[in-house]
Amino acid sequence: MPEFLTLLPPDEAREKLLSHLSTGIVDSESVSVDLSLGRVTAQDIFAPHPLPEFSRSTVDGYAVKSKDTFGATDSLPAYLNLIGEVPMGMEPSFEIESGQCALIHTGGMLPKNADAVVMLEYTQIVRAGLSDLNNDDNKKERPAPTGEIEIFKSVADGENVIRIGEDVAQNQLVIPKGTLIRPTEIGGLMALGIMSLRVAKLVRVGIISTGDEVIEPSQQPKMGQVRDINSYTLSALIQKSGGQAKRYGIISDQFETLKEAALKALSECDVVIITAGSSASTRDLTAEVINQLGSPGVLVHGINTRPGKPTILGVCNGKAVIGLPGNPVSALVNGYLFVVPVIEKLLGVTPKPNASVQAKLTVNLSSQAGREDWFPVKLIGIRDSGFVNRKSEIVNYEAEPIFGKSNLIFSLASADGLLKIHPDATGLSAGEIVDVMLI
Amino acid sequence: MPEFLTLLPPDEAREKLLSHLSTGIVDSESVSVDLSLGRVTAQDIFAPHPLPEFSRSTVDGYAVKSKDTFGATDSLPAYLNLIGEVPMGMEPSFEIESGQCALIHTGGMLPKNADAVVMLEYTQIVRAGLSDLNNDDNKKERPAPTGEIEIFKSVADGENVIRIGEDVAQNQLVIPKGTLIRPTEIGGLMALGIMSLRVAKLVRVGIISTGDEVIEPSQQPKMGQVRDINSYTLSALIQKSGGQAKRYGIISDQFETLKEAALKALSECDVVIITAGSSASTRDLTAEVINQLGSPGVLVHGINTRPGKPTILGVCNGKAVIGLPGNPVSALVNGYLFVVPVIEKLLGVTPKPNASVQAKLTVNLSSQAGREDWFPVKLIGIRDSGFVNRKSEIVNYEAEPIFGKSNLIFSLASADGLLKIHPDATGLSAGEIVDVMLI
Repeated sequence: MPEFLTLLPPDEAREKLLSHLSTGIVDSESVSVDLSLGRVTAQDIFAPHPLPEFSRSTVDGYAVKSKDTFGATDSLPAYLNLIGEVPMGMEPSFEIESGQCALIHTGGMLPKNADAVVMLEYTQIVRAGLSDLNNDDNKKERPAPTGEIEIFKSVADGENVIRIGEDVAQNQLVIPKGTLIRPTEIGGLMALGIMSLRVAKLVRVGIISTGDEVIEPSQQPKMGQVRDINSYTLSALIQKSGGQAKRYGIISDQFETLKEAALKALSECDVVIITAGSSASTRDLTAEVINQLGSPGVLVHGINTRPGKPTILGVCNGKAVIGLPGNPVSALVNGYLFVVPVIEKLLGVTPKPNASVQAKLTVNLSSQAGREDWFPVKLIGIRDSGFVNRKSEIVNYEAEPIFGKSNLIFSLASADGLLKIHPDATGLSAGEIVDVMLI
Repeated sequence: MPEFLTLLPPDEAREKLLSHLSTGIVDSESVSVDLSLGRVTAQDIFAPHPLPEFSRSTVDGYAVKSKDTFGATDSLPAYLNLIGEVPMGMEPSFEIESGQCALIHTGGMLPKNADAVVMLEYTQIVRAGLSDLNNDDNKKERPAPTGEIEIFKSVADGENVIRIGEDVAQNQLVIPKGTLIRPTEIGGLMALGIMSLRVAKLVRVGIISTGDEVIEPSQQPKMGQVRDINSYTLSALIQKSGGQAKRYGIISDQFETLKEAALKALSECDVVIITAGSSASTRDLTAEVINQLGSPGVLVHGINTRPGKPTILGVCNGKAVIGLPGNPVSALVNGYLFVVPVIEKLLGVTPKPNASVQAKLTVNLSSQAGREDWFPVKLIGIRDSGFVNRKSEIVNYEAEPIFGKSNLIFSLASADGLLKIHPDATGLSAGEIVDVMLI
């Protein structure tokens, strides 16, 4: 029979679902930092020591007492006695007194009493010499330079120097709980000598397929049968999003069998997805099962979006249970819209901006007012490299909608992204600049 | 001594490097499709059979001969005899003759002679009955519906039907060589029963750290020493980009030792990165080593970008060898600019658009004309959900540059992305809409 659903706007539907779930409830586990890419921190991380731990030069030049350079110019240079070279990776054995300087390399430790570094470019050697002033400490055993240096430019206290703790102070909160670990966080942890940390466990998402017409992909379909696509597209999406999919196979459209499978999945996982058979009757079955799994059961049945109208959102005893349409395009698009945010909430990850691509729409696209539409689009005209700023040069793509029947998996596979039309818009015009979500 | 380099614009430098490398040269390996997310296809994939393999209904309704509905309206409906229900997952045992129809569910196989489906919404049961016409074939053993159906809307030939091969035809190229595998490609492969495929092997990238001041992160630095950050940030970046990092540890700044380590890495890997010590002398050492590893050696020494001026790009006997600055921010930014494109070229992956975020710049940012500048920025004002289209609503972020000394790893860790200023621009103005690369 025809379905009469009260459709909720997708944002409202998602909000309703998420409001029934607690943040960051998955357990944590310890991982080695060099294997932690893409994980989410489950603890605040504080700096065990300041960074840097000593004052370092940021340039190649001469370490000086800045006041010795005050007023120095091309026409009136300052003259300083070169007393040695700072060895890399070691504490210099000498101090800088008034009127003295020492050769220093980028990253070298500032000698005691020096407070700035003059770049080589603003200096000249007047009189060169060699001594063995710091030979004892210089592992390369080369003689230390001496002589007199002309300084053409004054430096301020701290110029060309990173001071102790200038990156982070001791005990400073450096990486808060809920941070997604990127290459740069790994670098920061390594800089502090932190070799392992606690991260949120991967969110376990159970996937149940239903539908009398659905068979395992490895099997040969008979007439009328189709292979299970959704379990695998959703597994991949879950894997990308900080989850771990567990597939419970293809379950018959019988109420008791489906309920039993769902109860098992619910006991073993943090989230359960039931991808419905395509017909209205199996969708209703999913809603019935969700209502019996636990309280409060179905929260949303029917969402004002295309594709994805028959999506069901439920919570059973604190765990999200989501019924997705059987149509593979619907299932994947609605996976992005509803499953990914659930995983992120359970991980407790601080939301990051959604990456997208700006493109110029090639044709008029009409949309039903009040409904949020998602169109698969191809992006044409890949720019050669990087991110061009200024803005006038940014839009280097055209977005070309892929028309045709919406439930074809290869129409989605040929798309670069999805284009959303806001419920308030009745369409978008050719030539408009649009925001495309990459898939 | 001061470095006098002939600086190349980054795009030109990258082009020069890539032009010396062959596309898709890494070997391929066979992987199971359900484990292939993020890999790159090393073969063209053709459909072994059409999709769908039978004509399917896209709606719940009645399968009909379309000509029987021609002219049907609310006031002048057509009347058809209901002869049965199409069982899900099976071939219907009956055919549709003129004047007949059959109940069909979304995804059901069209009975022989039917060519369209009328949606339930446009029908009404006039006279219901039951027969056991197709009981033999209906595994649920429920009686088949019979009766008379009023049709209020005509359908065209093929309406609400996906025909055989409408998604893909047999032998059609469905996934070309060089495709990055996303959830949707996994779905397409599963739909065709393709359970494994050949993908490009992960690109092996050897990383050598140099610098007398650099120690392993697990060690306790003495005064003047710093932990190795770059080997780990770059390993993570490589992992994200389809590569597999092999770390060769921290090698002393001696020419022969470094050359020996580089030769070993070059023989075992597809790409070699040498992250230089910070000082000019160790950078020169890297260039010398690259020149002796193989031909043509150093292609670019010095790039007109900040950070990253001292980056060295070389090719030795067909393999890229890249010298990155010791400064951890420089090393990572230049990893994005030069290492990632090399990995992509070796994988043979068709370039995908770079994901970014549009944001409104909070302050004026000046830049030296002719130089490409990359600023770490924080994105402020995360939108709640999704991708808002129309354009006027898109910019929901402000981009706030993180000032301070550029070589602080935690200034990068606190950034959401990098903002590029094009070499032709002398700066960007507060309020401008800019394109931020997420890191």
